[in-house]
Amino acid sequence: MSQALPLPPVVRSVAALRAQLAEWRRAGDDIALVPTMGYLHQGHMALVRYGKATCRRVCATLFVNPAQFAPTEDFQTYPRDEAGDRAKLAQAGCDLLYAPTTEEMYPEGFATRITVTGVAEGLCGAFRPQMFGGVATVVTKLLNQASPDVAVFGEKDYQQLLVIRRFVRDLDLPVRIDGAPTVREPSGLAMSSRNAYLSAEQRAQAPELFAALTAAAESLARGGGPVEAVLGAARQRIVAAGFASVDYVELRDAETLATIDRVVRPARLLAAARIGPARLIDNVAVVPPAAV
Amino acid sequence: MSQALPLPPVVRSVAALRAQLAEWRRAGDDIALVPTMGYLHQGHMALVRYGKATCRRVCATLFVNPAQFAPTEDFQTYPRDEAGDRAKLAQAGCDLLYAPTTEEMYPEGFATRITVTGVAEGLCGAFRPQMFGGVATVVTKLLNQASPDVAVFGEKDYQQLLVIRRFVRDLDLPVRIDGAPTVREPSGLAMSSRNAYLSAEQRAQAPELFAALTAAAESLARGGGPVEAVLGAARQRIVAAGFASVDYVELRDAETLATIDRVVRPARLLAAARIGPARLIDNVAVVPPAAV
Repeated sequence: MSQALPLPPVVRSVAALRAQLAEWRRAGDDIALVPTMGYLHQGHMALVRYGKATCRRVCATLFVNPAQFAPTEDFQTYPRDEAGDRAKLAQAGCDLLYAPTTEEMYPEGFATRITVTGVAEGLCGAFRPQMFGGVATVVTKLLNQASPDVAVFGEKDYQQLLVIRRFVRDLDLPVRIDGAPTVREPSGLAMSSRNAYLSAEQRAQAPELFAALTAAAESLARGGGPVEAVLGAARQRIVAAGFASVDYVELRDAETLATIDRVVRPARLLAAARIGPARLIDNVAVVPPAAV
Repeated sequence: MSQALPLPPVVRSVAALRAQLAEWRRAGDDIALVPTMGYLHQGHMALVRYGKATCRRVCATLFVNPAQFAPTEDFQTYPRDEAGDRAKLAQAGCDLLYAPTTEEMYPEGFATRITVTGVAEGLCGAFRPQMFGGVATVVTKLLNQASPDVAVFGEKDYQQLLVIRRFVRDLDLPVRIDGAPTVREPSGLAMSSRNAYLSAEQRAQAPELFAALTAAAESLARGGGPVEAVLGAARQRIVAAGFASVDYVELRDAETLATIDRVVRPARLLAAARIGPARLIDNVAVVPPAAV
């Protein structure tokens, strides 16, 4: 039997968070922040381990942020398991869990919102118009509350990562933003808290999202095309696998998310599709075909 | 002849600003930031002196922020005199002038905006819908660029001061916001860079804005009313003095800016009116009539 690691302490207020982090900072420790909405999986654990490899201290945050859900979305049903999360964080070497209440984050009278254009438009921004403004606002708050040296986000949410890089640069937030690679199940399915919504059958079908993206990326890297035909084939494959609908499969510049119709510099294939009660997203890198 | 004080050094990049402030911070000095749009007058000097009395070091900023002007407003013609400003800053004990370029503040690709509801709505927010979002965005940038201990703003821009307090609290920016009292000419006219737009005749008429507010506040503090009659008399007096039009004269709660129709806790009378090429604003405190 493996020995239980000590659970990370939990703080629920900005004041308690700052007091603990200030103590570590006085001791000369640098700090990585890993914001999450909880219901942690191996993808989150990889972010915590990344943070721990980067900085002496890692603080994970757990807050299901109402501001990034539309009224029709799954805020109420979003899976929650703080006790389980805390045990997993202990395994990954997390030093502190910050799990604020909604009242601590959005007290009576709260009246501020951050909006981002450009990278936040299109893709998921077109289907979930609330989301990135809500993400920008809550991440800015978390960064200002913790003042970490580094904050770590997953490439699974690739557009979100670019949105965060954008407003952090635009608002001159004094923090480094690191992205960490997507963690996948052996089937290729990207780890996601929303995979918990899937039935056994849907879970067997869901890996085709990644498989379709991978095949399309390989085709484009070999110089295949035209792009619209490659994307169309990927959409068909996702629907054929049992997805109810495809929100988008798109090829974008990897840095700006600008629409492109050929791959001459690093690009990204991004997709969102619906299966059962879940909306799954995924993305893969597309390398330009080698110059002849 | 008084001896010329050494001019404060000028930095124009975030990197140079941070390097200088980090040096002072390492020496144990705390830092006050005084954001301005330049063309400094005694009101600004009072903010700098306030900062110097509060912290060991004072950094003034000079940036005419295009994001807070509507296309029809006076961004192009806003008065500018950096050399004169620098000499005045020296007299007030300013340690550093941060005067970034527009490219440094809003580089190609800039895509983020902060918006505030509640206190930012109504009053000047109704007449200048661009303004407070632009103020919130640029002030957040300046605060993140400098990470001061205290930032000082004038009560002359009373609604702006409350908007700044609001988003600083909402975004958890780790800084204290201090307001400093309005500085007035002997006539009572509030010091403003836009007073430079006034002809000699208009400058003789302009003090009636403050006089009308003061008379209304005294009436309300004596229990006079009804409120709408007191405000109406103030509007009439401002127009009678030679102002072309009155944008608003309103009584609001001093802390929330909520509309009120009687004074039972600290309140504020706020006004904006147009005279010649200038739109002038002013405000005064209203103390509740003493309980009987």
